[in-house]
Amino acid sequence: MSRLKEIISDDQIKKYDRSNIFKDYRSWPTLASESFEKEVSVPKISKFGHIVVCGMGGSAAAGDVLKSWLKRLNVVVVKGYHLPKWVGKDDLVIATSYSGNTEETLGCYSEALEMGLPLVTISSGGLLESSSKKNGIPFNKVPHGLAPRAAFPLLFYTLVNILYSLRIVNDVEFKESKSSIGVLTSHSKKIFPEVPINENISKQVASFMFGKYPVIYGSEDISCVVERFRRLISENGKWHAMADVIPELCHNEIVAYDIPNPQLRIMLLRTKLDTQEVRIRFDILKEVLL
Amino acid sequence: MSRLKEIISDDQIKKYDRSNIFKDYRSWPTLASESFEKEVSVPKISKFGHIVVCGMGGSAAAGDVLKSWLKRLNVVVVKGYHLPKWVGKDDLVIATSYSGNTEETLGCYSEALEMGLPLVTISSGGLLESSSKKNGIPFNKVPHGLAPRAAFPLLFYTLVNILYSLRIVNDVEFKESKSSIGVLTSHSKKIFPEVPINENISKQVASFMFGKYPVIYGSEDISCVVERFRRLISENGKWHAMADVIPELCHNEIVAYDIPNPQLRIMLLRTKLDTQEVRIRFDILKEVLL
Repeated sequence: MSRLKEIISDDQIKKYDRSNIFKDYRSWPTLASESFEKEVSVPKISKFGHIVVCGMGGSAAAGDVLKSWLKRLNVVVVKGYHLPKWVGKDDLVIATSYSGNTEETLGCYSEALEMGLPLVTISSGGLLESSSKKNGIPFNKVPHGLAPRAAFPLLFYTLVNILYSLRIVNDVEFKESKSSIGVLTSHSKKIFPEVPINENISKQVASFMFGKYPVIYGSEDISCVVERFRRLISENGKWHAMADVIPELCHNEIVAYDIPNPQLRIMLLRTKLDTQEVRIRFDILKEVLL
Repeated sequence: MSRLKEIISDDQIKKYDRSNIFKDYRSWPTLASESFEKEVSVPKISKFGHIVVCGMGGSAAAGDVLKSWLKRLNVVVVKGYHLPKWVGKDDLVIATSYSGNTEETLGCYSEALEMGLPLVTISSGGLLESSSKKNGIPFNKVPHGLAPRAAFPLLFYTLVNILYSLRIVNDVEFKESKSSIGVLTSHSKKIFPEVPINENISKQVASFMFGKYPVIYGSEDISCVVERFRRLISENGKWHAMADVIPELCHNEIVAYDIPNPQLRIMLLRTKLDTQEVRIRFDILKEVLL
């Protein structure tokens, strides 16, 4: 713990965060607002079937959050080289790649282009920009120069904006997504490096996880957050973590706790959105695990 | 290693496998054949939209395998209490619960019943059987008395049979699934406890993983296998494992390997089905990780 306190001091954060990625994270509320206000290019569509978001890493995360949020729509996120085989002429394909050069996303983009599907693209440049322009595909440019994993708000709020422009996202949902920028602003101030550990939930979590294997559990409804948390521990923390969702984990992973394991650090991500059924499961988990 | 050799001797397997679950696994080829030949009850449908498989644990795994296999169809697996909000009148709901009393699956079943959706059920008994019979829902009974996680072939091959009966699975696919029973038979003989470790891939894998954290990587195309392997380590091995899929892991999790970690045991699940792109990613991973 004392070594950790030293590690998460201002000076040490500067030392470990060599690419100064924290600067990118600090700008999230601004990036979100700017993406939210910006005009977007969209394809002309009269009806739509599925919404297929193609992207990897941070772009995939934007699709996952969209899927978790817009539950009334069947959003499908493709994290690979190819469109699903069932994709048909009414399905809207959104190809997102921060660099514009992600080979998997370019693969899906090419397939959609060849099939003549309703298609729209998002990137900061690269081949996705040049090919979209050449082929007359509605293209949405986001600012470049960030670490791709920190570009999440650029991609997510541009996605929302595109779907609002197409009247797929309705007025109520659009307002809801706008209010999330306020939450982003107020929360981010509480987790800045200059906030001391006793008031800083991020530093407290880092302290709790340090030197152990984090295990992140949350409701299936926020599986996008559970999954992203795990992956960001790898990307930013250069370490391994485990994750699973409630209720599925209650049917298998929970059995692994027959023998207590001091190398694990279990984190339960509870939210106001949790249903009564999920709350009960969390209470049982807490009793069994902690 | 010497302790492990002792653990995986015949006598020790009997000692650790107290519920004799191996007996259930040994019967998989027979269970598969019987489920495959059996007549099934199906709803009358003239067309269908999505195939929604509801189930937890082993039942969810049957849905996941179906989804990975029938890529030309948009199979959706629900591992929770509620049907997706977008489900509509043409979507076929298949509720599977080995015990017939899984509360999440019963929740989805009730919603489908209330909405009057095309519905079919699979269980060995329980409330799912009694309610299906009471409400005139096509019900498919599977033999009871197994550990639910070992009931996979009963659930999977019954699923295939139902979809074939509805002409959703075509003749070619039906034959393909039948041939998988042959593979199951020939493979299972190689991994029985009586086969010595030098000829037994299962014992070799157990020896490799012993006392470490298994990390299972495979192509997104076989994500059902990757995920099931991880969960079965928890259920049968009472231990924790990690898992991820190619290519997505190349965009985040791979960064965690900046510092070598001797506590991990990485397993790459390569198959003949891997595309050229995935094969290249595997080769790179092997170079980086091993």
